[in-house]
Amino acid sequence: MIEGSAGDKRTKKLTYGMVGGGQGAFIGEVHRKSIALDGKAELVAGCFSQDHQNTLATGSMLGLDEDRLYASFEEMMTAEGKRDDKIDFVVIVTPNNSHFTIAKSAMENGIHVVCDKPLTTDSGDAEELARLAKEKGLFFCVTYTYTGYPVVKHLREMIAKGDLGDIRFVNAEYPQEWLSTPLEESGQKQAAWRTDPELTGISNCVGDIGSHIENMVSYLTGLKIRSLCARLDTFVKGRTLDDNASIMVEYNTGAKGLYWSSQIAVGHDNGLRVRIYGTKGSIEWSQEDPNYAKICDLDKPTSIISRGRDDLYPHAQGYSRIPSGHPEGYFEAFANIYSTFCDALGKKLAGESLTVEEMDFPGVDEGVQGVRFIEKCVESSKRGAIWLEF
Amino acid sequence: MIEGSAGDKRTKKLTYGMVGGGQGAFIGEVHRKSIALDGKAELVAGCFSQDHQNTLATGSMLGLDEDRLYASFEEMMTAEGKRDDKIDFVVIVTPNNSHFTIAKSAMENGIHVVCDKPLTTDSGDAEELARLAKEKGLFFCVTYTYTGYPVVKHLREMIAKGDLGDIRFVNAEYPQEWLSTPLEESGQKQAAWRTDPELTGISNCVGDIGSHIENMVSYLTGLKIRSLCARLDTFVKGRTLDDNASIMVEYNTGAKGLYWSSQIAVGHDNGLRVRIYGTKGSIEWSQEDPNYAKICDLDKPTSIISRGRDDLYPHAQGYSRIPSGHPEGYFEAFANIYSTFCDALGKKLAGESLTVEEMDFPGVDEGVQGVRFIEKCVESSKRGAIWLEF
Amino acid sequence: MIEGSAGDKRTKKLTYGMVGGGQGAFIGEVHRKSIALDGKAELVAGCFSQDHQNTLATGSMLGLDEDRLYASFEEMMTAEGKRDDKIDFVVIVTPNNSHFTIAKSAMENGIHVVCDKPLTTDSGDAEELARLAKEKGLFFCVTYTYTGYPVVKHLREMIAKGDLGDIRFVNAEYPQEWLSTPLEESGQKQAAWRTDPELTGISNCVGDIGSHIENMVSYLTGLKIRSLCARLDTFVKGRTLDDNASIMVEYNTGAKGLYWSSQIAVGHDNGLRVRIYGTKGSIEWSQEDPNYAKICDLDKPTSIISRGRDDLYPHAQGYSRIPSGHPEGYFEAFANIYSTFCDALGKKLAGESLTVEEMDFPGVDEGVQGVRFIEKCVESSKRGAIWLEF
Amino acid sequence: MIEGSAGDKRTKKLTYGMVGGGQGAFIGEVHRKSIALDGKAELVAGCFSQDHQNTLATGSMLGLDEDRLYASFEEMMTAEGKRDDKIDFVVIVTPNNSHFTIAKSAMENGIHVVCDKPLTTDSGDAEELARLAKEKGLFFCVTYTYTGYPVVKHLREMIAKGDLGDIRFVNAEYPQEWLSTPLEESGQKQAAWRTDPELTGISNCVGDIGSHIENMVSYLTGLKIRSLCARLDTFVKGRTLDDNASIMVEYNTGAKGLYWSSQIAVGHDNGLRVRIYGTKGSIEWSQEDPNYAKICDLDKPTSIISRGRDDLYPHAQGYSRIPSGHPEGYFEAFANIYSTFCDALGKKLAGESLTVEEMDFPGVDEGVQGVRFIEKCVESSKRGAIWLEF
Repeated sequence: MIEGSAGDKRTKKLTYGMVGGGQGAFIGEVHRKSIALDGKAELVAGCFSQDHQNTLATGSMLGLDEDRLYASFEEMMTAEGKRDDKIDFVVIVTPNNSHFTIAKSAMENGIHVVCDKPLTTDSGDAEELARLAKEKGLFFCVTYTYTGYPVVKHLREMIAKGDLGDIRFVNAEYPQEWLSTPLEESGQKQAAWRTDPELTGISNCVGDIGSHIENMVSYLTGLKIRSLCARLDTFVKGRTLDDNASIMVEYNTGAKGLYWSSQIAVGHDNGLRVRIYGTKGSIEWSQEDPNYAKICDLDKPTSIISRGRDDLYPHAQGYSRIPSGHPEGYFEAFANIYSTFCDALGKKLAGESLTVEEMDFPGVDEGVQGVRFIEKCVESSKRGAIWLEF
Repeated sequence: MIEGSAGDKRTKKLTYGMVGGGQGAFIGEVHRKSIALDGKAELVAGCFSQDHQNTLATGSMLGLDEDRLYASFEEMMTAEGKRDDKIDFVVIVTPNNSHFTIAKSAMENGIHVVCDKPLTTDSGDAEELARLAKEKGLFFCVTYTYTGYPVVKHLREMIAKGDLGDIRFVNAEYPQEWLSTPLEESGQKQAAWRTDPELTGISNCVGDIGSHIENMVSYLTGLKIRSLCARLDTFVKGRTLDDNASIMVEYNTGAKGLYWSSQIAVGHDNGLRVRIYGTKGSIEWSQEDPNYAKICDLDKPTSIISRGRDDLYPHAQGYSRIPSGHPEGYFEAFANIYSTFCDALGKKLAGESLTVEEMDFPGVDEGVQGVRFIEKCVESSKRGAIWLEF
Repeated sequence: MIEGSAGDKRTKKLTYGMVGGGQGAFIGEVHRKSIALDGKAELVAGCFSQDHQNTLATGSMLGLDEDRLYASFEEMMTAEGKRDDKIDFVVIVTPNNSHFTIAKSAMENGIHVVCDKPLTTDSGDAEELARLAKEKGLFFCVTYTYTGYPVVKHLREMIAKGDLGDIRFVNAEYPQEWLSTPLEESGQKQAAWRTDPELTGISNCVGDIGSHIENMVSYLTGLKIRSLCARLDTFVKGRTLDDNASIMVEYNTGAKGLYWSSQIAVGHDNGLRVRIYGTKGSIEWSQEDPNYAKICDLDKPTSIISRGRDDLYPHAQGYSRIPSGHPEGYFEAFANIYSTFCDALGKKLAGESLTVEEMDFPGVDEGVQGVRFIEKCVESSKRGAIWLEF
Repeated sequence: MIEGSAGDKRTKKLTYGMVGGGQGAFIGEVHRKSIALDGKAELVAGCFSQDHQNTLATGSMLGLDEDRLYASFEEMMTAEGKRDDKIDFVVIVTPNNSHFTIAKSAMENGIHVVCDKPLTTDSGDAEELARLAKEKGLFFCVTYTYTGYPVVKHLREMIAKGDLGDIRFVNAEYPQEWLSTPLEESGQKQAAWRTDPELTGISNCVGDIGSHIENMVSYLTGLKIRSLCARLDTFVKGRTLDDNASIMVEYNTGAKGLYWSSQIAVGHDNGLRVRIYGTKGSIEWSQEDPNYAKICDLDKPTSIISRGRDDLYPHAQGYSRIPSGHPEGYFEAFANIYSTFCDALGKKLAGESLTVEEMDFPGVDEGVQGVRFIEKCVESSKRGAIWLEF
C-alpha cells in the first residue's frame, strides 16, 4: 500500500477555456474529466464547435456562463485576453489542421496553451509556435498522453540512471484495428477527419499513432533520431493516406530502432508497446497494461514491477494515486500531464521558479519534433522507402 | 471505437458532504476524485476528522466554506438538516464501527447516504439502517466498488440471460499480501484500524475483503447462500483478528462455491478474481485486469472480451467512457457507482420514477447481507469450521 | 543455453513388460514413448489387453516376439519370472481396480513395478503392496507424472532450503472440463471406466486428479495432512461418483491448505496449479505452462523463472534436456520419472548404492498416501463434509 | 480429450546414420531423441565427430556396432552405399559449412538425406543439392523444426482456406539474448562456431534464426518475397557477423512484412513469434507457447485455440499426441518432422504413391529459398540497407 501524492494539494484553482470538444466529439470530454479528477483547474470559457448552437448547448451542460461561450476562437482569444479574470490556459482539441492558428491566436493574447498532438500539419508552423512560446514566455503543453503513466516515468529514470547499460535496440509498435475497413465511408466522424488530408495533414497512421511511438521512445531513452527509412502503406482501397507504417531508425548514439504503427491490425485495440534493449538489461511496457512493466537483466530472472507494490523512483511514485492492484488507466495518465502542467503554471504565475522535474510535461519542442518525424517518414516513403538524414 | 454514455449529461449538480477522509486518510480522496470525474455532485460540507484542525485544513484545501466545516458529525447532520440548501447526500468514509451512528444521524435529518462497506459491525445495526432507509424513503448506497466495472455488469447480464446455462460452481478469491507482516505494529494507519476489533469489528480479512467476494458473486449470479463452512486463520503472531479465510458455501439452487480471501498471500496486490462455471459455459474476471474477461463455452474456443472492442450489453456499455485499449480502472469503477447514484437521486429529487437499471448501485440490503455473511463466517470458524445454515 | 544431463548416458538397456496399453487405450502409449525418448529401457513383453487378439496386434505393431505376448497377466508374470532374461520391470497401465492383483503378482515373481496412480482402490491393498515391495526388496514406482517437471523439482528445493520462510497456506487446484456432460453415456472409453465405481473405485474426481494435488503439494512442501474436510459433488445427472471436490486441509505444522479439483469446470483443459505462501515469499506453478514459475518475495518485484534461462538447482537442472525457450512438456516430465527409475534400478541391479537424489521418483509410499487421501475425502463428504483426522 | 494419430502405427523400422552429434554436441541428441519418440527409424551407423575417438565413444554409448562407426563421412557414405542393409537415410547435424559436401556424398551413394538448416553457406551449392535430389529421386528434408507444431499446421490451413481474408501484413520476430555478450570468446562451443564465418557462412543472426522467420512465414502463408530491405547490425564488439537484423519485405501479392531477429535481445529465450493480418482476421503464434494461438476476427471477440481442446483441421490434429492441457513441446515438433519423413520414405521405398499432405515436411526447395534469403539480406545491408529484388 504505497501511495504517491498526485492528490489534493490545491489551494487556488486555475481557470481554462477549451476550443473544440463539443457534443459529438470524443477527446474534449476526456480532457475535461482528466482535469476534473484532480480539480486543479476549472473550465470557464469555450468555443466548443464551429456550430455555435453546439457550443451553447455544451456550455450549458457544463454549467458555463453564457457570456464566455464564443462563436469563434478568434473572438474567444480576443475577449478573454482583455478580461481581468482571463483564462489561465486554453485547451485545443480540434482537428490537426486548425491547431496552428488557434494556438497562435491564444499566445498572441497572452494565454498559455495545451494542444493536442500532432502539434500542426507543417513543421514550419510548429517551429513558429515554439518560437512564439519562448518569445512570449508562455507555457505550451502538447498532450502526448502516454508519457503520463507512472511506470513510464519510472522506466525513463531507470534508463537515465544506466540500469539497462547502453541502449542498443528499440522495438516499438502501435497497432490498432479500427481502420481495417473503409470506416470513413460510413460517416464515422473520427475516421472521417483522420483519413482526410485536408483536416489531418499529410499522414494518418504515422501522424495519429506513429508520432506517439516517436515521442514515447524519445521520452524514455533521450535518444535522437539521426536517420530513418520509412515505408507507409495504404491497404484499404479508396483511402488517400497511410494506414500502416514500418520505420527503421538510427539514433545519434549508433543505437537502432524498428517501429511499426498500424490501423489495419485486426485484433489490436490500442496496442502501444515499447521494448528497449541495452547491454545489461531490457524493459517492456504496454499501454494496455500500464501499471506493470517487464524488466529483464542479463544475470537475473525476469521481473514484473507493479505500480504501488514495488518501489518506483520517487518522482514517478508521486504520480501514483492509489495502492497496487487498484488499476489506474488512461484518465489518470492524462490527469498526470494536466496535474504537472497546472502545478507548474500555478508556480509560474506566482513567480516561483521551477525544477526540471516540475516541468515534466510534454512541451512545444516535443511537438515540433513530432511534426518533423511525420514529414520525414512521408518523404522517405514517397521516395521509395529510402534512408534520410533527420 | 465504441463508447458508452457515462458522460457529460449533467444539468444541475447535486451537493454532498463527507464524514471522514481528512488529511492522512486514503479512501476519502478516492471518493472525492471519483465523484469529480463526472462532476455530477459537488462537495460543500464536511467533518473530515475527529480532529477539527484536520477538518479545517482539509476543507480549506478543498475550497469549502468554513461555516460548513463541522466539529462533529452530529453537528453536521443537525446543521445541514436545517439548511434550505442542505446537502443532498453524505458520504461516510470512517472506520466500520462508526458507520451505524453516522448513517442513522444522517437519515434522521433527511439526508441520503453513501456509506463505505462493510456497512456496520453488527447485523442488527445494519438491519436498523435498512429499515430506517425504507421508512424515510431515503437512498442508501453501500460502496461495493468492484461491481461498478462495465465488464462485470456485462457478465452479470450474460449469466442472467442464461449464457452459461445453470450455474454449478463458483470459485472466487481475493488474495492480498499487505498484512503478511505485523504492519499494524509499525503504526501504519490502515493496518492499525483494520486489525483492531474496536474499530473494525469481529473480522478483518472476511470483513474487509471476503465481503467483496460475497457481494460480487451475489451481484453476478443472483445466487443466495443457503449454508456455509468457514475457517478463519490468524497467521501473523500477535494479531487478534483473521488474516486469511477459506469458505465453502452452498447456494439456494444447489450450486456450490469456494471462497478464499487472504491478506498474507505474498505476491498478490489486490487480487479479487471470480470464476463461475455453468452447464454450458464459464466466465473468469479479475479486478486487476478489469477491462477484459475470459469466456469459455463447451463448444467453442475460449474467447477474451474487451471493453469497447466487443459488444457489451447496452446497459453495461453505458458505463464505458473511452474506446477499447484505453484502460479504465478503479476510479472509473467507483465513479460508475456514484454516477448511477447521482443520476437516480437527481431523478428522485425531481419526482421522476426510476427503472431497475437506473437503480443499479449497491444498496443497503446488500450492506445487510454483507454483515450477516461476516457474522456467519466468524461463528462457523469459532465453532470448529462447521456448517451453518444462513 | 543451459542444458541438463538427462541425456544419452546409457550403457546397457533394461527390459520391461507392460500390462494394459493395447490398441484403443491412451496412457500406455504415453508410457512407451516416454521411455523411448531416453532409450534406457526396451519393451520386450506384454499383456496389452484382456482381449488376446488386441495383445497380439499391439505386440506385432511394436515389434515384440510373439512368445512374450501373454493372454493374461498371471501367465505373463509366471512365465517371465522363470526366464533367465526376464523383464526387469513391469509397467501397469490398467484401470485402478486391477492394479493390486497385477502388481502383487509381479512382485511375487520377482519383478520390479511401475504402476499408474491411484495405486489401488483400497488403502489396505495399497499397504499390502508397500509391505511386499519392502519385504522383497523390489522397486515400486507410482507414476505421479507432474513431479517430473524440472521446475517443480527446483521449487521443491527452494522450499526445502527455506526460500519462502515457513509455509502458511497452500492453494492448489486441478480443474478440467471434460466430464461437464455425461460423456460416459456416449461410450467414450476413458469417461466410461473413470466414472464406473467397479473399475475406478470410490471416487472419480478426487481419485483421478485430486490425488495429483495431494501428491504435488506433499512433494513440493513435505507437509503432512493432519486433518481435512471435503465436500464432493456430483453435478452431472446420472453419474454415481464425484465430478467436483472442495477440500480444506490442515497440515502437521499448523499450515493450512485449500484444494479444488473439478471435471466440470468448463474452459479448463488440465489445469493443475499450485500456489504456496510462506512467511517470506510465495511460488506459483501451472502444469499447462510448466517451464516457468512465478516467484514472489516480500521485498522484491515478482520474478518469473524460466527453465534453462535461470539457474535451477543442479539436481533440478539435471532433468532439463534442451535450452530455455525450447518448450519441454508432458512427455519429458514422464520421461524424467522413468529416467530416474531406470538409472536407479540399473544401479541396484549392478549392486551399487543409491543416494536420496538418485531415488527421486514417486514410490509406493506416495501411492499408499494417495489412496488414504481419497478414502478420507470420500468419508468426510459422506458424513456431511465434516472434519476428519488423517 | 481429443487425440491425433501421430502414434504407434509402425510396422517396419527404417534405419539411419548420423554425421555429427558426437559427445559435447547439442542438436544431434535432439534429433536422436525425437526420432526415438515415435520409433519409426533406428540409428545404426555414424560418423559423429571428426575425432574418431569421439565417434567410437558415442557409438558405443548408443549401442551401435563398431563396424558401422566411421572415421569420415566419405568413408561412411561409400561403405554404407555398398551394404545390402545400407542406411535408409542420413541425418546431417554438422556446422553449416560442411552440409553441402556431406549431403552430396550421401546422395551420390543413393542415401536419402535429412539436413539441418541453413542448408548450405552458398545458394549455388544449395541449388546443386536440389538438382541432385531431383535427379536421383531421393528425399531431402531440411529440419525447419518449428513448422512441425500441430497448431502451426492448423493456422496454415486456416490461411489457405481464407479464414483471414487476403493477407495484408506480417510481423514476425525471433529475439534471443544468448549472444548479448562476447560469449564466443569464452570458448562456448555453440557461440564459437555460429559467430565464425568459416564455419557458419556469411551471416550469424539471419542465418541461424532469421531464416526460421522466412521459412515459417512462407510455410504459413504461401507468400513469396518479391523484394526486401535489410539492415544487419553487429552490436557486440569484436564480432564479425551480424547479431541483430531488421528486415522489410514485400511479397508477390503486394502484402508487406516486417521481420526482426536478434541475439542481443536481453530477456528473450527463443522468442519466435508470428503475427499475420488479413482483411478479415489475424493470427498470432509464439513458439514458446506452442500449443495455443490467438485468433482475431473483425466481428468476433478474440479467441484462444488450444491444441486438443479445439477442433484443429484433421491433418494438423493428426500431429497431436496427447490431450489438451498436456503440453507438447520442441521434441514433439521435431518428432513430427521425422514422423512424416519416415512415413513418406517408408511408402516410397515400398513403391507406394504419396499425397501432398503425406509430404508435409520441409524439403530441399525450402532449404534453397532460405540460403537465398540470407544472401539477399546480407547484400542489402552491405549496400546500405537498400531495397533489392528477390
